[in-house]
Amino acid sequence: MAKVKVYVTLKPSLLDAQGRVVQTALENLGYGNVEDVRIGKYIELEVKENGQTLDTQIEEMCRKLLANPVIENYRFEVTE
Amino acid sequence: MAKVKVYVTLKPSLLDAQGRVVQTALENLGYGNVEDVRIGKYIELEVKENGQTLDTQIEEMCRKLLANPVIENYRFEVTE
Repeated sequence: MAKVKVYVTLKPSLLDAQGRVVQTALENLGYGNVEDVRIGKYIELEVKENGQTLDTQIEEMCRKLLANPVIENYRFEVTE
Repeated sequence: MAKVKVYVTLKPSLLDAQGRVVQTALENLGYGNVEDVRIGKYIELEVKENGQTLDTQIEEMCRKLLANPVIENYRFEVTE
C-alpha cells in the first residue's frame, strides 16, 4: 500500500480570488504583513499497487480528475 | 520575505465526504486500487517579517482563520 500526496495549485499567472479574500481577512485581523496568499488542494491517496507503474497511474489521475491542467499545476510524492 | 506552506487536513476520525466522492469517481475511471482519498487545503503565504516571531504569527493565523481547529488539523513549514 502506497501513500501518495498530491499538491494542486492554481497557475501563477492566474488571479487567485479565494486567496485574495483570505489575504483581506488576514489584513483585517491585523496581519498586514501578509503580501500574498494562494490556495490550492492537498490530496492524500492510499493506493494498492497492482503491477502498473504507480507514477504513471497517479499522473493520469491528476490529469483526468484531480487537477484541471488548463488552470492548475500539480505535483505529487509517493511515500510508503 | 518568508514563504510559508500551510497544510490543512480533516481530522482522521471524521468522514471526508468530498474525498469519498473523488474515490468513487476514480473507481469509475478504472482506478479500483485506490483505497482511500482525503482532501485538504494547501495554502501558500508570502509574509514580510516584522520582528514578531513568524511561527507564532502563522500559528495564530491557522487557529483564527485558515483552519477550523474543531474538525481540522494543520501544520506549516517556513521557507525563504
